[in-house]
Amino acid sequence: MTDSTHRSGSAAFVAFVAEWGPHVEQALRDLLPAPGAPPAALHAAMHYALFPGGKRLRPVLALLGCRAAGGDARLALRAAAAVECLHTYSLVHDDLPCMDDDDLRRGRPTCHKAHGEAMALLAGDALLTIAFEGVATAGAAATVELARAAGSLGMVGGQVEDLAAEQDGRHTLARVQWIHDHKTGALVTGSILVGAHAAANPGALPADLASSLRRYGDLLGRAFQIADDCLDLTGTAAELGKNPMADVALGKLTWPAIVGLEQSLATARDLAREAAAQADLVVAATAAWRGVPRGTLDAVRGLLQDAASFAVERRR
Amino acid sequence: MTDSTHRSGSAAFVAFVAEWGPHVEQALRDLLPAPGAPPAALHAAMHYALFPGGKRLRPVLALLGCRAAGGDARLALRAAAAVECLHTYSLVHDDLPCMDDDDLRRGRPTCHKAHGEAMALLAGDALLTIAFEGVATAGAAATVELARAAGSLGMVGGQVEDLAAEQDGRHTLARVQWIHDHKTGALVTGSILVGAHAAANPGALPADLASSLRRYGDLLGRAFQIADDCLDLTGTAAELGKNPMADVALGKLTWPAIVGLEQSLATARDLAREAAAQADLVVAATAAWRGVPRGTLDAVRGLLQDAASFAVERRR
Repeated sequence: MTDSTHRSGSAAFVAFVAEWGPHVEQALRDLLPAPGAPPAALHAAMHYALFPGGKRLRPVLALLGCRAAGGDARLALRAAAAVECLHTYSLVHDDLPCMDDDDLRRGRPTCHKAHGEAMALLAGDALLTIAFEGVATAGAAATVELARAAGSLGMVGGQVEDLAAEQDGRHTLARVQWIHDHKTGALVTGSILVGAHAAANPGALPADLASSLRRYGDLLGRAFQIADDCLDLTGTAAELGKNPMADVALGKLTWPAIVGLEQSLATARDLAREAAAQADLVVAATAAWRGVPRGTLDAVRGLLQDAASFAVERRR
Repeated sequence: MTDSTHRSGSAAFVAFVAEWGPHVEQALRDLLPAPGAPPAALHAAMHYALFPGGKRLRPVLALLGCRAAGGDARLALRAAAAVECLHTYSLVHDDLPCMDDDDLRRGRPTCHKAHGEAMALLAGDALLTIAFEGVATAGAAATVELARAAGSLGMVGGQVEDLAAEQDGRHTLARVQWIHDHKTGALVTGSILVGAHAAANPGALPADLASSLRRYGDLLGRAFQIADDCLDLTGTAAELGKNPMADVALGKLTWPAIVGLEQSLATARDLAREAAAQADLVVAATAAWRGVPRGTLDAVRGLLQDAASFAVERRR
């Protein structure tokens, strides 16, 4: 039963990120108007928010989703860039004074600190809009997937509940999980599904493959977010690129704040193991749909498993 | 040559608006989550911004675009609702304190005055997002069309330049036209094209039909916007639903502020006549594509002509 063997380590996923990172950067530059295109101030603000980027996790997950559905990752590059534009808009708007009012992002002034509040608001609007220009190349199903993941029943809904929790102070595990699932999990899963739809476009993704990928993404997203909460407590400033204990200082609603660090880490590892096991179902569904032996999908199964390990093993 | 006869009056278009208005309202309710869906505060703010609406001009233009491309207007209803969600997001964000800082919209408190600034920002984000869920039903070409009309090279770009003009005071006719074309014209044309793509979906709209509709939309949008600027000077509070001379009071960059009221009105009427004449080319392209006699499209040609008259004859 090699199918259910969970290989420890995230080497294959780390190599996948290193291989595809430069292609994601290029796809982002291809999707965006040049920084000097009029209105130049707007395009400069959009580029400022996007470059240099962070981990580019979501676009890489879109490429992984495409591979998981049996497609060449190149098919999903424009949709991957779209997903990163959408993620970046959410950071720009979250940092605004009426929201989290943050001055720093990735070690430099936030977009509104550098370009003014009106320009940051509009740059965020334009990044959200261009995300849908990009994802449209992957078809209508990918477009609907991204809109649902990002909208009022997904990411935006999670942000609303996060703000509400900061104000009313009702901190329960069910609530923090709901917020995680919506604020960050929805777009993690959405990114994977967008990539899978790109692989199937113009055809339709089979329902069993879509649901097994959705389950994989939900588990991965939860593991990733809980690990993120833990890193805030255990990481060094050098590793994180920001001050540790920032969530604690802000009284943020986190998993370790409710159940403690040890149980949080154990839960994150359990979720990562579940996600890795789910990779077998994904590969089985793709093999059946494409009419290929499962063995031909060993590499992508390894990538899916390693991505799950990466979510909890990373140091930043 | 009945083809080039321009009938005066906007009766057919007004009747079209009256006929389809209730269907647009229903399509909006079908597209949006219920106001009580969690997070209820977010969905309440989205509904507050959308209902009751204004003229619903853009969704009606989407239905008109669908008819102009030989489709049943019902094919474009969801895309029409999407276009209105997108327009409404732009109003909500434009009213925010860091932008125009408006307290009133359509005679009642703006969204951020009623629901708070953070919720208005997020409700706008969610309305923009759900617009793309809605337009996806009309196909990838419609999605790209809407994204380009609304993005940094369209509506958002126009808003940036409008804010810049308020600050630097450089008021030229070329600049006011650029701002009109981007801030309002792009989405007028985009709405018509989105509807036409819905009529062609899943096939592609012929290039000559797309370009003749684009020309029609551009002329209509310009006529509409110049007439809007003039109404601010000539309308009564009862007709406008707001105080007249509001643009003058705010030192807004308008057409009459540069060339005077008389020349502005004359230009608006000229543009409306050009748009009406363009209706013949639209109908010819559709008839050739669909393989039907032009005479079968007399009704929609009349609608296109009447919409052009409406742009300059309306009192609000």
